[in-house]
Amino acid sequence: MPQATRGYAATSPTSPLGLFHFVRRDPRDNDVVIDVLYSGVCHSDLHTVRNDWGGTVYPTVPGHEIVGRVTAVGSAVTRFQVGDTVGVGCMVDSCQHCAACAKGWEQYCEKGMTGTYNSTDRVDGSATQGGYSEHIVVRQEFVLKIPQTLDLKAAAPLLCAGITTWSPLRHWKVGPGSKVAVVGLGGLGHMALKLAKALGAQVTLFSRSAGKEADAQRLGADRVVISTDKAQMKAVRGQFDLIIDTVPYAHDLNPYTATLATGGTLVLVGFLGMQEPAVNTTSLVLGRKSVAGSVIGGITETQEMLDFCGQHGITADVEMLAMQDINTAYERMLRSDVKYRFVIDMQSLKSAA
Amino acid sequence: MPQATRGYAATSPTSPLGLFHFVRRDPRDNDVVIDVLYSGVCHSDLHTVRNDWGGTVYPTVPGHEIVGRVTAVGSAVTRFQVGDTVGVGCMVDSCQHCAACAKGWEQYCEKGMTGTYNSTDRVDGSATQGGYSEHIVVRQEFVLKIPQTLDLKAAAPLLCAGITTWSPLRHWKVGPGSKVAVVGLGGLGHMALKLAKALGAQVTLFSRSAGKEADAQRLGADRVVISTDKAQMKAVRGQFDLIIDTVPYAHDLNPYTATLATGGTLVLVGFLGMQEPAVNTTSLVLGRKSVAGSVIGGITETQEMLDFCGQHGITADVEMLAMQDINTAYERMLRSDVKYRFVIDMQSLKSAA
Repeated sequence: MPQATRGYAATSPTSPLGLFHFVRRDPRDNDVVIDVLYSGVCHSDLHTVRNDWGGTVYPTVPGHEIVGRVTAVGSAVTRFQVGDTVGVGCMVDSCQHCAACAKGWEQYCEKGMTGTYNSTDRVDGSATQGGYSEHIVVRQEFVLKIPQTLDLKAAAPLLCAGITTWSPLRHWKVGPGSKVAVVGLGGLGHMALKLAKALGAQVTLFSRSAGKEADAQRLGADRVVISTDKAQMKAVRGQFDLIIDTVPYAHDLNPYTATLATGGTLVLVGFLGMQEPAVNTTSLVLGRKSVAGSVIGGITETQEMLDFCGQHGITADVEMLAMQDINTAYERMLRSDVKYRFVIDMQSLKSAA
Repeated sequence: MPQATRGYAATSPTSPLGLFHFVRRDPRDNDVVIDVLYSGVCHSDLHTVRNDWGGTVYPTVPGHEIVGRVTAVGSAVTRFQVGDTVGVGCMVDSCQHCAACAKGWEQYCEKGMTGTYNSTDRVDGSATQGGYSEHIVVRQEFVLKIPQTLDLKAAAPLLCAGITTWSPLRHWKVGPGSKVAVVGLGGLGHMALKLAKALGAQVTLFSRSAGKEADAQRLGADRVVISTDKAQMKAVRGQFDLIIDTVPYAHDLNPYTATLATGGTLVLVGFLGMQEPAVNTTSLVLGRKSVAGSVIGGITETQEMLDFCGQHGITADVEMLAMQDINTAYERMLRSDVKYRFVIDMQSLKSAA
């Protein structure tokens, strides 16, 4: 029987999120039914709610940093059982057959991955709805195991902020001795510092203003460079093998590409749009440097990241939230007034009227 | 004794090249003295002559695609002897100590490589002068061996056009099964087609207009895609592992990045300047794609390329030129009226008055 579910949804680009009643599908043979315990709050949630990228279908229930408990499994499910603590990230399906899926790069599925929300289920064509809800039903291939050692509420942001920074760190082979810099100290940036440090890199935070040194160092930075200080920027010219740029809006990359080592890469993980001001290719050509992009990570890679976090005791720094406070939280997120990720305690939804 | 030498030099950004008398240094212990037989004509020669990039010191003798014969060697020279057929490319020295040099990436020397012309000799501070001259004196570490099997005049462009396209092909690991596209069919582009094909790749040429199919196929292209034809461009979306973009001016990269496969790279080898119109990062982020740059190649890599060309019988398609005709050749080069590289027969200089 399809399951009546309560969630928080936006019904238009301008309306606040509010209580929304909908149904979750009856589990298919390969489905896992999950009671949502915690749901992280990502900038993408807000972009979707406000239709910043176009294409939002309302009502939409956001949330793709989901930690929960398995309450039922389909008859063909082999990897999970009732009671397991599991996670769901930004994807709930992909074609599973293309070259990208075959490599474990479901996020780059040639047919398009199925988003956890604001997407279309590949089997029945229904709208997918995310983690700001009591329950979610997901095929087992897209369900992750959460290590027992982790604080569950602080583990939720690993499903998006964690994997989004982990994937480029791994793809560009960061390890002991690597020199990594991070641009932006928000949800993504603070995870990039923690993960890069745990991988053995020498880690630098670029910050536009002073005052973040203590926090940055606690999170894993060996050094903070003030990006608006020309002398400090000059002192790190040609230094970095990889720069993870988490800034979510158009900004000048040229001061940063100058700090890449020969063969280095600046990877954008937060900004979709026209790269303005223009990149000066001189620095790229004369230094075999790259400007690249990366989005989340594959499922195998996500499990690898979760296991790594379990071994190293890594979670996000979170501020807990009741579901009813989501609209206020969005306003604060827009002002970067969060250290460093909001997570909704989904128990709060039980008292929502 | 320093050797009196004749060459062709520019004396200002607006003056034609003309006969110029100067001296080549007495060989140092590690120097090789070379009679120049052939000198290829590169767009960089013209950029330098006309001070397009700033920083040109006049008089300047261009030429960095040099093939010649060894006429003398310093006392410490072990790798060459009198009579050897040798080549000199875009560099005649580097620091030999930095991390880049240690990796064989002299072109990215952290102290700056010494250009074959319009640069400053690291030992005596004199101006370097290039291959449009009777003789050249170069330290043995920057002298290449030219395989006996190659047509010497057609081998000259390998020293710049060849290595400039070879280095990215190798760095991005092109081999059998790779899908490579080339933008622009000039001196660099025609070498990119030949080298990519010989490495086993499936090779596509992007051309703005029809009419180049026969030539492109003869040079190694499996297919020509008309880049101004939206249907043709759509048909190759998501196809290419590597695009070598040889276009020497600012141009829109977005139609090309759309044709990169997931994880693919577009590498600029011909354009230094502001990348306008802006790159849309969406394609990069949602496909883990890169826009990169690359300049010439290291010395070991250049020798590897020359040996590969020797084994595969690869040289440039050249049009021979007398030294006296260089100014006309520059005008034709500006109109892309050359298939595909001018090479100066330096014997012609003997009759220059």
